[in-house]
Amino acid sequence: MTEEEHGQVFPAKRLEAFGASALAALGLPEKDAVSTAARMIDSDLRGVDTHGIFRLNHYAQRIRAGGINLNPHVHTIKGNAVTALVDGDNGMGHVVMNFATQLAIQKAAEAGLAWVGTFNGNHAGAGAVYSTMPVAHDMVGIYMTVANANHMAPWGGVELILGTNPISIAIPAGEEPSVVLDIATTVTSYGKVKLAAQKGESIPIGWMVDRKGEPLTDPKRSSEGFLLPIGGYKGYGLNVIIGMLAGVLNGAAFGRNVVDFNKDLVSRNNSGHMIMAMRVDNFQPVESFKEEMDRVIREIRESKRMEGVDRIWLPGEIEHYRIQERLKKGIPLAPIVVSNLQQLAAELNLPDRLE
Amino acid sequence: MTEEEHGQVFPAKRLEAFGASALAALGLPEKDAVSTAARMIDSDLRGVDTHGIFRLNHYAQRIRAGGINLNPHVHTIKGNAVTALVDGDNGMGHVVMNFATQLAIQKAAEAGLAWVGTFNGNHAGAGAVYSTMPVAHDMVGIYMTVANANHMAPWGGVELILGTNPISIAIPAGEEPSVVLDIATTVTSYGKVKLAAQKGESIPIGWMVDRKGEPLTDPKRSSEGFLLPIGGYKGYGLNVIIGMLAGVLNGAAFGRNVVDFNKDLVSRNNSGHMIMAMRVDNFQPVESFKEEMDRVIREIRESKRMEGVDRIWLPGEIEHYRIQERLKKGIPLAPIVVSNLQQLAAELNLPDRLE
Repeated sequence: MTEEEHGQVFPAKRLEAFGASALAALGLPEKDAVSTAARMIDSDLRGVDTHGIFRLNHYAQRIRAGGINLNPHVHTIKGNAVTALVDGDNGMGHVVMNFATQLAIQKAAEAGLAWVGTFNGNHAGAGAVYSTMPVAHDMVGIYMTVANANHMAPWGGVELILGTNPISIAIPAGEEPSVVLDIATTVTSYGKVKLAAQKGESIPIGWMVDRKGEPLTDPKRSSEGFLLPIGGYKGYGLNVIIGMLAGVLNGAAFGRNVVDFNKDLVSRNNSGHMIMAMRVDNFQPVESFKEEMDRVIREIRESKRMEGVDRIWLPGEIEHYRIQERLKKGIPLAPIVVSNLQQLAAELNLPDRLE
Repeated sequence: MTEEEHGQVFPAKRLEAFGASALAALGLPEKDAVSTAARMIDSDLRGVDTHGIFRLNHYAQRIRAGGINLNPHVHTIKGNAVTALVDGDNGMGHVVMNFATQLAIQKAAEAGLAWVGTFNGNHAGAGAVYSTMPVAHDMVGIYMTVANANHMAPWGGVELILGTNPISIAIPAGEEPSVVLDIATTVTSYGKVKLAAQKGESIPIGWMVDRKGEPLTDPKRSSEGFLLPIGGYKGYGLNVIIGMLAGVLNGAAFGRNVVDFNKDLVSRNNSGHMIMAMRVDNFQPVESFKEEMDRVIREIRESKRMEGVDRIWLPGEIEHYRIQERLKKGIPLAPIVVSNLQQLAAELNLPDRLE
């Protein structure tokens, strides 16, 4: 979506306050409303618009339907110095992952390394929001999750029993932006397919196939097919492994027991996530590690480009500049998103109606 | 390569003994010769023929050229209860990774989790050989390495400063084979391109592009182009992240300072690897975890198949059955591989000439 297609631009702080007041009005404790809104706006700042404030209406529907525990007892049920299994008690995904990520950082600060798994959670926004939190503490962050709806089939199969299961890994750098991977293991997201359908556009070959394995390029026919994994059987394999590490290992949903959070607003999602943190000074002095990261980043960026290519980007670099731009100029929202939020604001009788 | 194209079939134990005696004759201490040969045959058993005994001639060349330290002091230079940075002292890659993986297992057995990084290593064979070692101890294994030659460009670039940087992750199951991902982050390996060139075949669109970004399908022109990452910019990002976690974090080679181990037999490779081990009973009782893994594996395998598809495979399942078959029927070797090994046997005056 280009900026021109956006109806309005809002300061990040305003959207964050708006989100917090909406979530508080919906019944979340003040502290959780504030942290959830902050994590949502983190997604918007990165440009992952489909995982930010855009989702607020959906979250509101789920909360009103009783699908979220507003006062969860998020707690470690099993753990040691370097691992913890966290029961999210069906709280907001952002609240659960805030808890889990801070716990991983705290454990890694003490022991060098930590792996925290969660179950009984919910959709928590873009993976990079959590993988980048350890970076501020000079740690590598690794995040995986089981997606909250199944739009992919196993390799050779036709049943939708796999999601877009994403992975995000963040590594600190020095003067350069930290390097941040944040990818679904499918070629594209189902959201982009739905967007193309709304716009009456076709989708590229390679995004989806039908049940016979033939390319599906009409997004209006998307229910007849499924998303394709990156790299064919390789992405399928990575997808399954992520599902097992973020789902099965945590006692969270994976496969047929994943609840489609768009279609079912009430059933417990039992969404699973994992977050790791690893201090870089386990292996290298922080400053020399960051210098070496800067050197390698520049080596890649400054290597010879293909004709017609203006710039080589490192993973997460585009998002880094987008964060800076959006912090300065505000976050653009599509007209439909603005009107949905305005409607929610009216329903909840919020002081700021985003008008 | 089909079995028909193979000249001869050898029992795994015979090839392992042959490899050990060749490596001992080349100067490796008995213990290291035995463990290196065992790890090489592990690759052959899995069917990763390009990473097994096939490499022995190349390793021999490198050893004779003085490119390998035959009596390395492989040791931890920095570590704590859950991490270790291991200096491979330019020893055989298999020796270094044997040490590192056993160390990771030992630390994880005590603390629940471990991350061991190595530098100053060398090519160590297929990643799954190491990621699967923790599985025998009811642990998840995660392995990454920086490849030993650069055949890929950054996304949008044309300079060969990235390798196939693979990742392998192994997860224990119960009655079912453990689930084992072992993938390069490129669509294919450079070895497969060279093989197609030898056979006079063309390569599929999507394997390589030339310096203008146009598909390159004549493998004889491979030096004019580069391998493509899986999933476009996504695989490029994963590739770079692996290079940073297995290379930069360990003080190992990544980018331009990677030595092409095929072209340069002498220069220190400073090959970097990382191995993690994580006890599944950190989070779940071992038996119930394995039962749940079996259930999920069967759910995927038994889901509805695409027309014409005989079976849905889990990651690593084909390799599991190949190991069983090759343990029973032997390991097939191509005629050129057999004659190269016979030549080496004659040069080293080994008791078994593989004739």
